[in-house]
Amino acid sequence: MTKNSDTHPAIHLEYPDWVDTVVDWERRYASDEEKMRLTIAVSRENVVRGTGGPFGAAIFERDSGRLVAVGMNSVVRFNNCALHGEMVAFMMAQQRIGSFTLHSPNLPTHELFTSCEPCAMCLGATLWSGVRRVVCGAAREDASRLNFDEGPVFPESYRYLEDRGIAIVHHVLREDARAVLELYRTTSGKIYNG
Amino acid sequence: MTKNSDTHPAIHLEYPDWVDTVVDWERRYASDEEKMRLTIAVSRENVVRGTGGPFGAAIFERDSGRLVAVGMNSVVRFNNCALHGEMVAFMMAQQRIGSFTLHSPNLPTHELFTSCEPCAMCLGATLWSGVRRVVCGAAREDASRLNFDEGPVFPESYRYLEDRGIAIVHHVLREDARAVLELYRTTSGKIYNG
Repeated sequence: MTKNSDTHPAIHLEYPDWVDTVVDWERRYASDEEKMRLTIAVSRENVVRGTGGPFGAAIFERDSGRLVAVGMNSVVRFNNCALHGEMVAFMMAQQRIGSFTLHSPNLPTHELFTSCEPCAMCLGATLWSGVRRVVCGAAREDASRLNFDEGPVFPESYRYLEDRGIAIVHHVLREDARAVLELYRTTSGKIYNG
Repeated sequence: MTKNSDTHPAIHLEYPDWVDTVVDWERRYASDEEKMRLTIAVSRENVVRGTGGPFGAAIFERDSGRLVAVGMNSVVRFNNCALHGEMVAFMMAQQRIGSFTLHSPNLPTHELFTSCEPCAMCLGATLWSGVRRVVCGAAREDASRLNFDEGPVFPESYRYLEDRGIAIVHHVLREDARAVLELYRTTSGKIYNG
């Protein structure tokens, strides 16, 4: 597949270099709050370093609290509209595990933490990802206030996932997550117009 | 960003090697039927070569008929649940153009052709991609019959896109597109268990 990339585009995605400065990969994350705190830290660092939008995500093994992957909004950095925080987390987790689903009899149960309720794309991808639980920080309205459109997500969209055994939890550390959105609003001019 | 990939996963995506055997990149595709014929050819080749699910997509400049990118389901090939045909097409088109949106004053108008109505993830991504028109081959029910879940897509999901100026056209060469789904059903056992 090498000559291919001489004549066609190829997609390459890596974490930004700062990732290890905010992520402790060895730690066991015990509670929803601990897991969300890490997720929000990733979203905040993405803003502070100017590497993307104010959204972070993380995939954990639900029972052990082991961290499998993080994700940060990387749309601008890679010129790729699909690279929302949740999508990066799904891709990295599946790459690490070597499976296109995180839900399989020989795998532990996985959960997604996201610093903001997922947009329509990410909610759809959640279904394909194999995570069995989704925990959200900020609410859709918090993002909309920054003019981030969340797309066609309706109450029945969440029900569709729940009907397929995916648990959804809202508003964990919502204020902390919202503070990062606010940080982005007040600093993004400097970061992107600089 | 190089040492990063020594310790963390990295995502790499390329077209399968057969792409130039079915895609004429220089041709101008004049009608919806011509554009859909190419899109279906991509979906069929993906099945025949055993490189993924029976779904293809393509991005064109609407007025010139110039082909910008194609996409084929690459979920299994790359262990990545996000790599539906439409997503691959969006990513490749944006990479080629060097922009995270295909909708900008200095760009021609872009349209997505997809061999099957988009799932929830791809419909959400359509909104972020910047295409202004979506043309579909097979219908959601055609995919469901193969047990491909399309996720939380409702009539108001399409309306949400239409309200934002995205035109949607259904059932172009539906029978031809459906035939590829049927081909997958009858041959996939051979391809994947071989």
